[in-house]
Amino acid sequence: MTAYKRKVHYYETDQMGVVHHANYIRWLEEARVDYLERVGFGYEKAVAACIDFAVLSVSCEYKSMVRFGDTVNIHMDIAELGVLRMTLTYRISDAETGALRALGESRHCYYHSGKKRPVSLKKEMPELYEIFESAVESAGAP
Amino acid sequence: MTAYKRKVHYYETDQMGVVHHANYIRWLEEARVDYLERVGFGYEKAVAACIDFAVLSVSCEYKSMVRFGDTVNIHMDIAELGVLRMTLTYRISDAETGALRALGESRHCYYHSGKKRPVSLKKEMPELYEIFESAVESAGAP
Amino acid sequence: MTAYKRKVHYYETDQMGVVHHANYIRWLEEARVDYLERVGFGYEKAVAACIDFAVLSVSCEYKSMVRFGDTVNIHMDIAELGVLRMTLTYRISDAETGALRALGESRHCYYHSGKKRPVSLKKEMPELYEIFESAVESAGAP
Amino acid sequence: MTAYKRKVHYYETDQMGVVHHANYIRWLEEARVDYLERVGFGYEKAVAACIDFAVLSVSCEYKSMVRFGDTVNIHMDIAELGVLRMTLTYRISDAETGALRALGESRHCYYHSGKKRPVSLKKEMPELYEIFESAVESAGAP
Repeated sequence: MTAYKRKVHYYETDQMGVVHHANYIRWLEEARVDYLERVGFGYEKAVAACIDFAVLSVSCEYKSMVRFGDTVNIHMDIAELGVLRMTLTYRISDAETGALRALGESRHCYYHSGKKRPVSLKKEMPELYEIFESAVESAGAP
Repeated sequence: MTAYKRKVHYYETDQMGVVHHANYIRWLEEARVDYLERVGFGYEKAVAACIDFAVLSVSCEYKSMVRFGDTVNIHMDIAELGVLRMTLTYRISDAETGALRALGESRHCYYHSGKKRPVSLKKEMPELYEIFESAVESAGAP
Repeated sequence: MTAYKRKVHYYETDQMGVVHHANYIRWLEEARVDYLERVGFGYEKAVAACIDFAVLSVSCEYKSMVRFGDTVNIHMDIAELGVLRMTLTYRISDAETGALRALGESRHCYYHSGKKRPVSLKKEMPELYEIFESAVESAGAP
Repeated sequence: MTAYKRKVHYYETDQMGVVHHANYIRWLEEARVDYLERVGFGYEKAVAACIDFAVLSVSCEYKSMVRFGDTVNIHMDIAELGVLRMTLTYRISDAETGALRALGESRHCYYHSGKKRPVSLKKEMPELYEIFESAVESAGAP
């Protein structure tokens, strides 16, 4: 899977002259949405299925600065796929040099906005679950 | 009416070392919400009444820079009160020196989230309309 | 000049289910940066020249809602080009249907970060000024 | 140490009708800045000392939703104090009910903006280091 490419916006910088650390968390979401779109589970399908990937936790380790003028690649992987939850990991690197910028992680449950509770993705959306399963397998392949 | 007092957050600065201009628009909203709360029309009442002050337009003139470490006062006035629309003006100044930082304006209609259309505030919420009316009068008084 | 294409990010929505109005101001900046890049005045050149397009004022009229899942086109024009200042206008429309979403305007002076004061763009960067001049002319052409 | 009190801003909500998860990271920063101010190390002192608490990593676990209309308390603790680094933990709870909303953590090094490298806080700012030390001790006290 190719990475999500993202140019830095001017308004994302802070007075240290670098991208403010909270903005990386938004980038992780963008990469996630982009990933889902590319596996055929874009916004309209998500709405139709009433499934949200509710965020349980998020974390980010900052490795080197990102500045206005830079473009980053965000590579997302499904690190753990459970029936009720999943863990995603992210690798943010400079699009030009490949230099590592940050490592992220987010944990999600599958929240059904109609039933107002977490559900089994395997049951609710077996095709999507299978796509995720093969992504996990190929990522873990030697 | 006293001004809405607001400390600058670090994450609101940009790489020029000043508050990014888009953040002022958010401050105008904060001042508006604060004003409504103080005249007794806080969030819960707004929800109960199904009335939103939908933004038709917004503008801001930047007069001098605001920096991290500063506190600003935002003074809001009802510049025009119509049956279907209202215009609010804002004066952002340094809380310590009084120096003018920015002048803002926002125009709103009264949107009824149940009826899904703009409504007359005078009809829907006559008490609030009266509060606004007296605010306009006292602001315009010599 | 082609428009700047922008997908809505999930985090740009608010609890009304639409893009929060303050985010449009950020989009105008993105369109501006994109325009400058396309006429050959990207970030590195701006830094080398010490020229910032400091924001004097900004305004936006909201015409219809933008939602997550939408892509907008932002078309920017140089409405007025002065020796010391310029006025830019923006037209935000739905990328698919062409429906008008918002109209924006921003006024700028040419701020020299070395000299710490506004300067004449015509003097400081005659080639860029000429590019702007021809853009104004072609935009105003019948 | 009393908690940092924070009202939710309307623009911090997303289309799920709750505060967007990335905004919590900004709140952690606000609580941090507030804490430093209260122990006498406000922005001006930090600038004078050239010391930044550069963010190495950040994480947040979301326990229950925060909505517009809510006020939260953010209680910060120094979990680990090292000569070169420190770890801060945060507890976000509803100001009215005390219900837990989120748990956060951030790791920092002491970055000297003049020397352009991480430094020993104990050496550079012994008084501040001592304040931190006693905060750690009182937090850890039975």
